[in-house]
Order: sequence, then structure tokens, then C-alpha cells
Amino acid sequence: MSERLVIIGGVAAGTSAAAKARRVNQNLTIEIYTNEEFISYAGCGLPYFIGDHLANQQDLIARTVEEFGKQGIKIFTNTNAVKINKEEKNITIENKTTGQAEVVSYDKLLIATGARAFVPPLEGINLKGIFTLRNIPDSIAIRNYINAEAPKKAVVVGAGYIGLEMVENLLGHNIEVTLIEQNNHIIPNMDEDMASMVTEYLTSQGVIVKTLEQVISFKGQDRVTDIITNNGEIATDFVLLSIGVRPNTEIADAAGITLGAKGAIRVNNRMETNIENIYAAGDCATTTHLVTDKEVHIPMGTTANKQGKTAGENIAGGKAEFKGVLGTGIARIVDMEIARTGLSEKECQALDIEYITKTIKSKNIAHYFAHAREMWVKLLVDKNNRKLLGGQIVGYNGAAKRIDIIATALNNQATIDSLQDMDLAYSPPFSPVWDPVLIAINQF
Amino acid sequence: MSERLVIIGGVAAGTSAAAKARRVNQNLTIEIYTNEEFISYAGCGLPYFIGDHLANQQDLIARTVEEFGKQGIKIFTNTNAVKINKEEKNITIENKTTGQAEVVSYDKLLIATGARAFVPPLEGINLKGIFTLRNIPDSIAIRNYINAEAPKKAVVVGAGYIGLEMVENLLGHNIEVTLIEQNNHIIPNMDEDMASMVTEYLTSQGVIVKTLEQVISFKGQDRVTDIITNNGEIATDFVLLSIGVRPNTEIADAAGITLGAKGAIRVNNRMETNIENIYAAGDCATTTHLVTDKEVHIPMGTTANKQGKTAGENIAGGKAEFKGVLGTGIARIVDMEIARTGLSEKECQALDIEYITKTIKSKNIAHYFAHAREMWVKLLVDKNNRKLLGGQIVGYNGAAKRIDIIATALNNQATIDSLQDMDLAYSPPFSPVWDPVLIAINQF
Repeated sequence: MSERLVIIGGVAAGTSAAAKARRVNQNLTIEIYTNEEFISYAGCGLPYFIGDHLANQQDLIARTVEEFGKQGIKIFTNTNAVKINKEEKNITIENKTTGQAEVVSYDKLLIATGARAFVPPLEGINLKGIFTLRNIPDSIAIRNYINAEAPKKAVVVGAGYIGLEMVENLLGHNIEVTLIEQNNHIIPNMDEDMASMVTEYLTSQGVIVKTLEQVISFKGQDRVTDIITNNGEIATDFVLLSIGVRPNTEIADAAGITLGAKGAIRVNNRMETNIENIYAAGDCATTTHLVTDKEVHIPMGTTANKQGKTAGENIAGGKAEFKGVLGTGIARIVDMEIARTGLSEKECQALDIEYITKTIKSKNIAHYFAHAREMWVKLLVDKNNRKLLGGQIVGYNGAAKRIDIIATALNNQATIDSLQDMDLAYSPPFSPVWDPVLIAINQF
Repeated sequence: MSERLVIIGGVAAGTSAAAKARRVNQNLTIEIYTNEEFISYAGCGLPYFIGDHLANQQDLIARTVEEFGKQGIKIFTNTNAVKINKEEKNITIENKTTGQAEVVSYDKLLIATGARAFVPPLEGINLKGIFTLRNIPDSIAIRNYINAEAPKKAVVVGAGYIGLEMVENLLGHNIEVTLIEQNNHIIPNMDEDMASMVTEYLTSQGVIVKTLEQVISFKGQDRVTDIITNNGEIATDFVLLSIGVRPNTEIADAAGITLGAKGAIRVNNRMETNIENIYAAGDCATTTHLVTDKEVHIPMGTTANKQGKTAGENIAGGKAEFKGVLGTGIARIVDMEIARTGLSEKECQALDIEYITKTIKSKNIAHYFAHAREMWVKLLVDKNNRKLLGGQIVGYNGAAKRIDIIATALNNQATIDSLQDMDLAYSPPFSPVWDPVLIAINQF
């Protein structure tokens, strides 16, 4: 009998692992159990589905159940995994429709249960018109609500990437948007000086931005009509809660699997948990920060894909390692672009790292084009060894993906001095003769 | 008396050196002698001036004579430097208008004489309608010709960056363009497989592309009417010759300054020539290729700026080194983008480097957007030490500047294996979840 790989979770990490395991090992029996209806979908595309930028929701599915079937990967949707029995090497699953339980044995188990949107237990939280955005049903519910109820005023609670992307897509529906953030500035994983450029831009786009503002409760009869915050009351007919996610680790924890940073499942760089033959990958798992070498939980679609691939290869008999992450992130808000990688000032301070930081303002393309626009680049360098620590970019066309220059340098633990002469690409429609990133590098 | 820095040449390297020297040393006497009328202009912007993309030609000037004057940098335009007298530490200059000669003494001399367009001595070469594009008068002459003569058919001879950028700008004037290249494919510093994608695109834009085609002579009475090639005759009323440049090194050579790669002035990484107190920088000087560690001559605006800055700092008493280049280059042709850095297959073969190469085709942004377009990424890796050797990218929006990821990795001599998990930025409007460059990296 062939070896059995059982995967719990069918989005990025689970399906990446299955596909990779199949490529490496044709004999493996591979089964995916997911409590969702949809599999292998691009979660990061959901704001754009809501914004009507896609032809149809099917476009978000990378591979269908049928396509996996052709590769000999069986998918069981709408199935809750309720227990891991590590001694017996099986899991107990429950059919969500029939409630029927079943025991599924494994030789190797991959936990790829992902994360869920954090929903605080506030008064009125169950009112109609209050949403989170994590999966396809969420996005369909939001789009149906927008189409049916034509909300005029929306409040986005939480100014991280998803919150900002939803601001863009709500503006696209001609909805007036208020963005509220409990921290003292928006985009908490960037520094205040860089975030302030985004606040200014959002304000220019008609968005009302409120910081140090915390939701206390929601008011309304059937549908939400007001948000009560520490600062007053905001009338609204749509609320998006985007205040972070929590890893889905309950069955792992119950089975005695060790949890780590932020309660995510602790894995090594082979994606192994502390229990033999049990792996974890994706938004439910920890990873290593490549700048600090510390365990972190920074759930990202890119990381989920890479961790899934690594787990799949190792499970199938290969030998793969996933080194870790830099916390790279980018987003577009209408035509502003933001980006960050590595450590921010706040993170350096929390870690007691002595740093130098410089910020420059330049243009995205040669200044003599009428459509040249501002770009700000901020870099952080270790005061003691002069290694690059991180960077942040805010600007317009061409700003966001420039962060990859900094990510690549961080990936190879470059000192700032080794980067001074870098032969970055220049042509007037793409860059000033000194690329903004290179200008920033040359400030140190 | 303060020390005297004399600079021959007033475009990128010369003015960068002057500005840097002034910042480092307030007491230096700084004089620039240039045989041109214009100084400190953005040579790479000239095709866009011709294409009517700039408000006016003044926008191309980074700093005016007056602005330099305020910094105590004296500029003498329209002045030929005719001789370097290294024993006496002076140069002989000649006023281009009056023909009057004068001797100017220096303590330090910087040769930043640039390069000139190569013009082969072919029959009919002096006919009206045949141009090269290197400086502001060239660009004005071309624009005036287009406005006055309204050419219908243009031939661009030489399919490097300038040729391709001019194709775009001639198409913008509704001129029918034939692009001819003597090599067996266009963009000779890329590989044929990548260049063929560009040929296909150009053809789709109505450009006639002819390779292995060499100009023999030009026909016409007063104005050019035909190009005679090894392959036949092409009717035309406009010709741009963009078949490379030659470093301006005659006075350096006559003074016994050693020349190196392609006849350019040999400099070390401090921009020193073999003669004490004489420096060279920019398009007239050599540099080091960072992948091969060999002397090369790859004239580029970015390099000229960096070399000028390095020379200025050293001359002013500082200590700076310019490590070298990767041969990074990008260009836009209408909405196609091309990029290259490091070594191509051809270069590896010429250098007897054993390499592995992989090419992938992906998308520039998430596939579910209707406007997602193709991107091709080619990488070369050293077969023996697995170090990255170079890369090429062809595609649309977002393709060109992605080469900076590869340039940054090359700058830090990364092995392909160290790049496998890179935390590159992802968000659907900017990239597929696996960035095309990362997909290419993971083929090895």
C-alpha cells in the first residue's frame, strides 16, 4: 500500500504542498480535507473581486477540484477536521452537511489550517452590514450587500494592507470611507513618518482617517447604523473589520503540538512540528525572521506558498528548507503605492537594535516628464555592523516593487556600503538617473 | 593660491565631479571647459524630447551655468581642449568662435570628454536627413527636420537602446519605421531568444525589422531618399544611425595616457589614469565588470554620474572607490519593456564560462486581472560555483525594473540557491504570488 499524506486545509499552503508532493513522488496517496467550499483560491485577490476588477469569481481559483483529481489528489470540501490522534496516526473528520464523523489514517499529516479574521466580542458585532474578509464566501457576501443595499458610508476598522486595499475598492463603488486605526498612525508595520504621507494622500482622496480610535460597540436594529468608538459615534451602513488574524491551531494544540510566536504552530525550516510525521505550513505556522533570526508569525500568501512547497517536498521524500521571511509587504491604494521590508524603527527599538535611518524624497521617473511623481524611500542600517536592517517606500507608479531591491539586499545580508555603487537600471521612463533607492543608500 | 581643478567635458561625469568636489572642498578652484553649447543635460532624455514628451528642452538641463556659478564652478562652453601638457600641468584650449588659443594650468585634471556617435565613412553619409543622436543640437536638428519635412518613412540603423527608444518616438510622430541591425538579432547585448520576443512585438506595431542587414551607402540628391544595404534598397526620408559610440580619447592618447578596453581611457577604481594628477570618468573611461572582474567599456549615463562623483571626491581630498558595473540596461518601446544585467549567453561563451540557463514565461500581475500580460525572465548561473551570472527580462508594465532584483543579487555575488526563498513583494496589482523573477530562480 502506498504511503498516505493527509492535508488539513485547501488554500495556499495545503494545495502547494499537495502539488509539490505529487511532483516529487508519484506513488503517494494524497488527500486534502478542508472545511471550506472553495479550494486553492487567491485570498489576496478578494478585495479586487469586491471592486469588480475581475470577470468572475472563478478566476480566483488557481486549480479546481477536478484538476487536482487528475493529478491523483483527492479533495474533500466542507469537511471539519476535529481531532488529531497522533498515537493512532489518524484524524477525525466531520462532514459539515451530514455531521457524520469518520476516521482518516495518515502516514504524514500536514496542518495547513490557515488563519481567521480576528473578531472581537463587541456589542452589536452580529448586526447585518459588519464584515470580515478572509475567504470567497466573505467576498461574495460583501459584494451582494453592496449591490443590494447600496451603502453610502463605510467604516474600515484597521489600517493594514487589507483595510487599505478595501478602501480603494469601496471608493471605486462611490462609497464614502472612514478609516479608523487604534494605533497612533495607519499601517502600523510602517513608521509614522512614512505612514503620514499615506494619510495625507487618503485625505486628498476624500477618505476620513482617524487614529488612536478604538471600536467599542456597534449600533443598529437589524443593520448596523453607527459605530461607537472611544472618540464618539460614526454613522455608517457598512463596516469592514480588518484588525488582524489569528492562526487556526485549536486541533494542533489539543494534540500536544507545540505552539510558538503569536500562538502559531511552531515549525522548523523543514516545516516539521515537534510531533514526528506531523508538519505545518502557511498562515497557521511560525517562521523565522531573516534579519533578527527570531521566530515570528507574519501570515502572507507568498510565505504560505513557499512553506507549503517545502513541506510537500520533504513529505514526499525530498530535502527542502525554507529559510524564513523579511516581512516584505506592498499595497496599492488608488494610485498610491506603499512597501516595507525588514525591520521598521519601531521594531528596532523593541529589539534594542542600534540603528541609523535616512529618508529621501525623489521622483519615480525622470523629472522632465510632466507625469513624474514623488517617491519617498526610508532605509535603516545597523549602527554597529552597517548591515541593512530594513526599508520603506511610499510613492506612485513604480514605487512598491522597488522594495524588492532592498529585500534582495537583506536576503544576502548586505552592508549598506556594499550597495553604494549598485548598477541599477536606468532609463528616463522608469527612473531618475540615480534611482531613489540608490539615493537613499548613498545617504549613509 | 587655492588648488585648481580643471575639467574637460560638461555633461554627466564632468558636472557630477565638479559638484561633488565642491561639496567636499570649498576652497578648490573649479573650471569646466566644454566644446558644447549645453552642459549638464540628460542625454538619455533626448529621444523623448524628439517625441514631444517634454514641455521644453530646458527641462533636460539638470543645472545651468548660472547655478554652477553660484557654487563657484566656472563653465567655459564652446571651448575645445586641444592639448594636455602633462609636464607643465596645463591644457591648451581654443575658443570655438574666435579660434583663439589659451593655456590653462591645473593641479588636478579630469578628462570627461565622453563619447561620440560612430559614423562610418559611407557614400552619401552627409546627405540631409541622416542623423545621429548624442547631444542637444542633434535632438533639435532631428525635431526641426521632422517638423519641417514631415518624413513618412524612417530607417533606424542599429537596434540597441537608443535605436529602440527612437523607434518608439518616431512611431509617435506617425512615421513608418524600418529597423535594421547588422547582427543576427536585434538588441545585440541580449540573447536571441529574448530579443525574438521584441521582434515579434515590434512587427505587431507595424515596424519592419531586418537583421543581418548592413548599410553600404545612401542615395539622394540633397536629401536622403534610399539606403543601400547588403540586402537591397530601402526608400526612406529619414535615417537615424545608432550603431554605437566611440570614446573621445584623442587628446588623452596624445598626452601618453594609457588607453584600455575599446580604446577608452584606462582608470583604476579611484578614477586615476596612469599619469599623476590626471583623472578620467564617464563615457571616455573604462570600468570593471563586476561579474568577470575584467576591464570593460560600457558607456552609460548612470556610470558616468557615479564615476564623476568618485573622481570629484578623490580630487577634492576624499577617498572614494567605484567598484564597477554589471552592464545593466533597460528600455521601453511603446509599451514593451526590456532589461538585461550581468552576462548574456553570448558573453559567457566568449569568456568560456560554463553556464546553465533557464527561461520562464509568467505574468506581470495576478492572472485574474484582464490587463495581466506576459513576462519572460531568463537567468544564467555558473555551472561550477552556482553563482548568478546574469539575467534578461522582456515584458510589459513592471517588467524592466524587475532587473534590479537580479542586479542587486549580482552586486552581492549571490549563488542562485541563496535566492530561492526570497521574500519579494506581492500584491495582486503588482505581481503574481510567485514573482516571475522568483519563478525563474526556482528553475535551477
